[in-house]
Amino acid sequence: MKISAWAAPKARSGLEPFAYEAAPLGASDVEIRISHCGICHSDLHLINNDWGSSRYPLVPGHEIIGTVVRLGEVVKHLKEGQRVGVGWQRSSCGECEYCRGGEENLCSRKQSTCVGHHGGFAAAIVTDSHLAFPIPDAMDSAVAAPLLCAGITVYSPLKRYGVGPGMRVGVIGIGGLGHLGLQFAAKLGAEVTALSSTAAKEQDARRLGATGFLDTSDDGALQRGRRSLDFILSTVNVDLPWGAHLKLLRPNGVLCFVGVPPSGLGLSADDLIGGQKTLVGSNIGGSTMMKDMLAFAAVHSVAPHIEKRPMAEVNAAVERVARNQARYRMVLENPA
Amino acid sequence: MKISAWAAPKARSGLEPFAYEAAPLGASDVEIRISHCGICHSDLHLINNDWGSSRYPLVPGHEIIGTVVRLGEVVKHLKEGQRVGVGWQRSSCGECEYCRGGEENLCSRKQSTCVGHHGGFAAAIVTDSHLAFPIPDAMDSAVAAPLLCAGITVYSPLKRYGVGPGMRVGVIGIGGLGHLGLQFAAKLGAEVTALSSTAAKEQDARRLGATGFLDTSDDGALQRGRRSLDFILSTVNVDLPWGAHLKLLRPNGVLCFVGVPPSGLGLSADDLIGGQKTLVGSNIGGSTMMKDMLAFAAVHSVAPHIEKRPMAEVNAAVERVARNQARYRMVLENPA
Repeated sequence: MKISAWAAPKARSGLEPFAYEAAPLGASDVEIRISHCGICHSDLHLINNDWGSSRYPLVPGHEIIGTVVRLGEVVKHLKEGQRVGVGWQRSSCGECEYCRGGEENLCSRKQSTCVGHHGGFAAAIVTDSHLAFPIPDAMDSAVAAPLLCAGITVYSPLKRYGVGPGMRVGVIGIGGLGHLGLQFAAKLGAEVTALSSTAAKEQDARRLGATGFLDTSDDGALQRGRRSLDFILSTVNVDLPWGAHLKLLRPNGVLCFVGVPPSGLGLSADDLIGGQKTLVGSNIGGSTMMKDMLAFAAVHSVAPHIEKRPMAEVNAAVERVARNQARYRMVLENPA
Repeated sequence: MKISAWAAPKARSGLEPFAYEAAPLGASDVEIRISHCGICHSDLHLINNDWGSSRYPLVPGHEIIGTVVRLGEVVKHLKEGQRVGVGWQRSSCGECEYCRGGEENLCSRKQSTCVGHHGGFAAAIVTDSHLAFPIPDAMDSAVAAPLLCAGITVYSPLKRYGVGPGMRVGVIGIGGLGHLGLQFAAKLGAEVTALSSTAAKEQDARRLGATGFLDTSDDGALQRGRRSLDFILSTVNVDLPWGAHLKLLRPNGVLCFVGVPPSGLGLSADDLIGGQKTLVGSNIGGSTMMKDMLAFAAVHSVAPHIEKRPMAEVNAAVERVARNQARYRMVLENPA
């Protein structure tokens, strides 16, 4: 079976129509007819081979929504015609303690949807059924797509660190990830402050659930905000004065990275010891967290702000992401 | 009332006999006749003004054991004649959420025993009764002394991170702190690996409870140890390749600093995100943790290895600490 897709023929190139022979359907696999696929900054990194791991032709896309059209012989938990989503991860070993505990994102044999495999900028995909997740009925497919990567990435650490009523949470960066982080943190019951160097985004941040705004380009604001937050989620890919941001935390506070600043963090143990501060990284989320996130988003109406484009306009859509123009997530749509 | 003590008259000097007028006994204070005082590396930093905060003459000492000889008028929880210990912290506000929660070490108005006050290299001390802790009867006073700073410093993070059966714990550095960290971790039920660049300390480490030893100066050993530990406690004040040490951790693993390496940590967010690693600092411990630690040490026979010296030999004893010759903690003893 041939799958038609959009692929980068080489690094830093535009995407071109491309067809490939699908892998045979394994016993645990499903074939999904894709209706929508979000565009994530990671897709741009893959297209540009920023991580040195890309193989070409490369079909990006890992915020996939679609319909199950074929099931492997042992797949019992999904049905033909069911709507499902697939995120960054396509498979894991299924046997280690992490897989058994629903933390497949920590499995040492995990595989990614569009690293070494062809991803979701396509008409269909064949992937492991264990990491294809039913989408709650209430959700619009285009709106659901970004939850599969951006959504789980920000929800998982908020949940793991017990964000809820009584907690003061900061979210650094109001973009694809951050605009979801603000919504999730507010709906979890926390008092939320948006941190951004773009003062013009303050109004958006407040609409998304923030009750405070801190301009990170203003040293005085950083100074006045000292010892005011319990948990900070950093979604940005730029270097910031992390020592000053740690000082925004109250004792026992946590600074969690889901974005990767290009340089080192420039921190010493002293920055951590005085107030017993924690630095942590968070890496998407496993099946337990994904199901929890989807259910929470459906019940609490957490919804990415999206710009929809036909799949055929993929290059223009990717360009908007590259220029940071998307407000806040681009979603590609296949013809019905 | 005059208190006789040993003081540094100026930075980087030997200690000299010194007498000072004790502060009047406040309503919540106790006067303690000191029997023993441990010597901590922090005392050397204070003597040398390494932190720029020292005032002279300076009486070091913050691992104090002694007997209550006078009580302020509102002190009800201690009795005259009772044996108590005092550590790094002499007081806190008593009103904030941290004080009310037994985490006085995180109070923003905390005061230190020998920073801006005269410490325990003395015959007596007047200090806040709230941070003077009864010593379990079973404990020898000289052996108990180092628990008040070194002991609580290593016990607190082990306890906060749930170290116990099924956990694989590494302790970096086998010295004043590390030799207690090994004992506490082993007695808490963890499987313990000692990490040191001094291969000659392996036998000691095994006697203290380690079942594994990793020579940190051996790149191959660091390589072989990858993904083997759940929690690492770093007690050293030297720079190590922290990225390689993070790789010793399994997913969701924690690297906790109680020692302060002189340079920055040289880490990036990438070092943390992949396996969801945590970096944290820990800062002594509050009253709840101190009482728990003393009770645990008494029941499980956790005992510092000490070298005892008469108080009058304080300069020779300090010199042994400065040369890293103590095995593993020096304790000064006043005449009975």
